[in-house]
Amino acid sequence: MKLRDVGEDRLLEQLLPKLPRNVKVVLGAGDDCAVVEPGKRGVLDLLKTDCLVEGIHFAKSTPPRQVGWKAMARPLSDFAAMSGLPQFALVTLIVPATRDVSWVRQLYRGIEKAARTFDVAVVGGETSNIKGPAVISISVTGVVEKKRWVGRAGGKPGDELFVTGRLGGSLRASHLKFVPRIAESRWLTKHFRIHAMMDLSDGLGTDLPRLARASRVGFELDEAALPLNRGCTIRQAISDGEDYELLFAMAAKDARSLSARWKSKFPHVPLTRIGRFNLKSKIENRKFLRGYVHFQKR
Amino acid sequence: MKLRDVGEDRLLEQLLPKLPRNVKVVLGAGDDCAVVEPGKRGVLDLLKTDCLVEGIHFAKSTPPRQVGWKAMARPLSDFAAMSGLPQFALVTLIVPATRDVSWVRQLYRGIEKAARTFDVAVVGGETSNIKGPAVISISVTGVVEKKRWVGRAGGKPGDELFVTGRLGGSLRASHLKFVPRIAESRWLTKHFRIHAMMDLSDGLGTDLPRLARASRVGFELDEAALPLNRGCTIRQAISDGEDYELLFAMAAKDARSLSARWKSKFPHVPLTRIGRFNLKSKIENRKFLRGYVHFQKR
Repeated sequence: MKLRDVGEDRLLEQLLPKLPRNVKVVLGAGDDCAVVEPGKRGVLDLLKTDCLVEGIHFAKSTPPRQVGWKAMARPLSDFAAMSGLPQFALVTLIVPATRDVSWVRQLYRGIEKAARTFDVAVVGGETSNIKGPAVISISVTGVVEKKRWVGRAGGKPGDELFVTGRLGGSLRASHLKFVPRIAESRWLTKHFRIHAMMDLSDGLGTDLPRLARASRVGFELDEAALPLNRGCTIRQAISDGEDYELLFAMAAKDARSLSARWKSKFPHVPLTRIGRFNLKSKIENRKFLRGYVHFQKR
Repeated sequence: MKLRDVGEDRLLEQLLPKLPRNVKVVLGAGDDCAVVEPGKRGVLDLLKTDCLVEGIHFAKSTPPRQVGWKAMARPLSDFAAMSGLPQFALVTLIVPATRDVSWVRQLYRGIEKAARTFDVAVVGGETSNIKGPAVISISVTGVVEKKRWVGRAGGKPGDELFVTGRLGGSLRASHLKFVPRIAESRWLTKHFRIHAMMDLSDGLGTDLPRLARASRVGFELDEAALPLNRGCTIRQAISDGEDYELLFAMAAKDARSLSARWKSKFPHVPLTRIGRFNLKSKIENRKFLRGYVHFQKR
């Protein structure tokens, strides 16, 4: 059965009520806007949108369930990067009329699974036809306590740099299955003062200089310490991208107790010190990394 | 110059800082999420996303500035429908690399103009390449006072039905230039108790039954009273769609003072009583309108 045979409106009507909602939803899909209860005092609202385009970010042959998971997981990874709690999502699905409905259903299942896993309510969305490749665009809103939000600009010379998980080789498979580090990020800001943080989407070789630049500091990278995925080289760990791991900076004195506490809280997620911020000029760092950094993939 | 020659990241970097922000933005584009101050107590948050797809909602030859205006105006019209105040927008722009940069710049100008007109801060977005038609997806968040939000479900038998502006023939031009009725809607809920409201996107023949269905009532339409755009027939006013005017229901006793007060507040925007809600069965209404309603255009 083709999408054009069902009618997009009817499909959305069928699919949206099945998607998860949480208690703060006054009015979900079906009216002109979604209505949600606002956050409490002392919190900031966060907004993030992200899209996946067929032929650019995924192949026509990619399992649609994995595409759906990734489409939701990517903006959630940005929430992790700020230590935010995602709450509500709007899902826009643009699919050619010739596409099998089963493809769309599988895609939604992936979106739904990621939403449920992180307690995100899908409160609305749009569908449209397209004479071309499929596009999935997801916007997420949520909150973060004023005292806990972490940007990129707060790093200081002398801060130690950490990454979660392992790096490199994600395009073989893990980029479709990664788990946004929200639990880890929330735990970090509950127990430690994190100066600067981001998620690694374009690779350490691109993202670490970004974090340093935003914080107006230089950095030293301890290449030998990098946590590598199986079969990956240091070069791949630095330049592959799509790791969706956290990169963060904190004061050296605060970092002393981190490793032991982390290991007992997240025994299956490695945490690795990979270097430090310093006063080194931007130019030196640029030279250092030039060998690694690919042209932007997107 | 082609988009592929500039690089999408760089273009977004250039364009986003120029877009309007308002005072509640803690952190706009450039970090992982936008950060905004949450609404006050007594208010609800609203979320809406909408997309325009080239070849479906606009032609390749449509002036991009008008496409940009419409891409922003459509979700804002949904805010008007709920009497909400839009505050923040996320703009996702998916454009083939072969597209002229000037097309993208003009598109942004249209988006920007609509955002400024309604005091909406563009706080983030995404760009992507596509091997196919351009797609613009805009998500808007905002607020509405708990006592003022209007859904579709509150209409009662005996309520009088009103529309703003004139109907029909919008596809000749006005669908690209329409002005979301936010000021009108805000004024209405400040001074009157509106039972049910929506914006007319698919045409009165589709949307009025929707409003009645959501309110579980029937309706009588006074065809002869319909405010027609120049050169339009009643049939067109009912079935053309894309009017983006408000359709709302209020108690007959409250409606008595409405027309005079409206005329002095909005002298250039017609307000017309077009019928009433009643207890008539859905089936009778369906028969009544069947002759008018097109197949869904999208």
